Amino acid sequence: MNSDFKNRPVAVIGLGLMGGSFAERLTELGCFVIGFNRTEETAEQALRMGLVQSVNPQDLKKADIVIFCTPVKGTLAFLKEHGDWLKEGAVLTDIAGVKDHNWPRIRELLPPGMDFISAHPMCGREGAGLAQADGTIFNNCNYVLIPEKENEPEHLELIARLARALGAKHIPRVTAEEHDRFIAYTSGLPHAVAASLMNSESYEKDTGMFIGGSFTDATRVADINGRLWTSLFLSNRDKILAEMDSFQESLCKLRKALETEDAEALCEFFTEARRRRREMIHHGSR
Amino acid sequence: MNSDFKNRPVAVIGLGLMGGSFAERLTELGCFVIGFNRTEETAEQALRMGLVQSVNPQDLKKADIVIFCTPVKGTLAFLKEHGDWLKEGAVLTDIAGVKDHNWPRIRELLPPGMDFISAHPMCGREGAGLAQADGTIFNNCNYVLIPEKENEPEHLELIARLARALGAKHIPRVTAEEHDRFIAYTSGLPHAVAASLMNSESYEKDTGMFIGGSFTDATRVADINGRLWTSLFLSNRDKILAEMDSFQESLCKLRKALETEDAEALCEFFTEARRRRREMIHHGSR
Repeated sequence: MNSDFKNRPVAVIGLGLMGGSFAERLTELGCFVIGFNRTEETAEQALRMGLVQSVNPQDLKKADIVIFCTPVKGTLAFLKEHGDWLKEGAVLTDIAGVKDHNWPRIRELLPPGMDFISAHPMCGREGAGLAQADGTIFNNCNYVLIPEKENEPEHLELIARLARALGAKHIPRVTAEEHDRFIAYTSGLPHAVAASLMNSESYEKDTGMFIGGSFTDATRVADINGRLWTSLFLSNRDKILAEMDSFQESLCKLRKALETEDAEALCEFFTEARRRRREMIHHGSR
Repeated sequence: MNSDFKNRPVAVIGLGLMGGSFAERLTELGCFVIGFNRTEETAEQALRMGLVQSVNPQDLKKADIVIFCTPVKGTLAFLKEHGDWLKEGAVLTDIAGVKDHNWPRIRELLPPGMDFISAHPMCGREGAGLAQADGTIFNNCNYVLIPEKENEPEHLELIARLARALGAKHIPRVTAEEHDRFIAYTSGLPHAVAASLMNSESYEKDTGMFIGGSFTDATRVADINGRLWTSLFLSNRDKILAEMDSFQESLCKLRKALETEDAEALCEFFTEARRRRREMIHHGSR
């Protein structure tokens, strides 16, 4: 399966943490990786780091696959300004964390003869920027695809094969609406929780001397790009608000059991949480 | 410093996940580890696994240091029933996650000539039981000590040296009340949050195909022993309720910013969370 990608020209647009990680892994797979970034300095750095093999915009014409690792606005801007730099017949894809309302805007700007497969690899790491690039983030990740009726089945399969080659475990296919609903729960909510834990008035400078794994893990994703996440939250506002409410309900149930010193209710709550957690991990590892 | 413990007889009472992990690390340090467990079968298993060198209760008399890896009730029961199995002059210590109200009860049952250093290593791992034992959990952990006025300074120092030898990074000393307040925030709260995330009505069997690192990390400690944590929550009820309230306030602030689509407030919230998180990690790694 990996021979599918050896020597394959693949373009990565946007060389931040995610773009850099794609580039690193694709280079490892033997692809000919062409990188593009708005600031040339970053592109040069990626070249020096060996993450890409070319940063010459003219080489973009060679790419069979073009991966947009930019915010949605950046993707649309590139298509508008430089769509003609890409090869006719290229298969485009992206990594945007919110899907709804994107498709009409993408279709409007997509050059003729090109296909665009909306995707969302559920992986990353704390921090931001090229220096944080890490090709191993794709190992066993969930890589979500959002097939649109205008997509060609073989292009969908190509991106699915790409995801598999990168290291993905599950490659579920859902609608844009389903995607946004799922990730409001599995991504928006833990980010909201991580930031809220840090911003509790209980935090103090010495907190670091009293933490163990649970606080460290629960707050890892508090270390995020504020502007990117503001944008992600606003574009999935309703669904994230709904998840915050469901979570509040759950937390209040626990709070009530504790307040009334109901040992049985507490134990049931923890036991059910454990059951679900094990089921989730087990089910996700099949 | 490690030569301090080579060939040293150390007893571990309670051979679950924590007891097994202590035993493994102490064996690595060259101690002569005597293990004791209510169910003999588990003790025999620990011996077979090479985590302890003896499970003969008569060898407990040799131990200079006795580490109670039992719930508080278990520690008190052991002191009451088998306190005479221990050596006079032995230094006892524990790992209990809640400290307040313990000291008078311990003092009441502590045999003459023995000292007891209340401690709480802030480390562990998901799951439970001897099979999950892992001696590396102490690496760079925070190991909290609660000096009581009746403790001998050199015994406090001995347990601090033990913690250092096990791999601890910070060994802060605080009162029982301070301890319970800090860990309501740093331990109680993330466990409440992890369980509440899993118990949201949004969870379904396929959730595992749509998760990335953030949901996995935020819910890791939902996989816990229900009865142990019910007990820990009840014994630190007031402080954990206070932390849940502070957290709610913080989460509500975020919710309001999202509801009113206040991009500036959202960005500020995330940016402050990131600042605190980096400060916490940096400060804790000094």
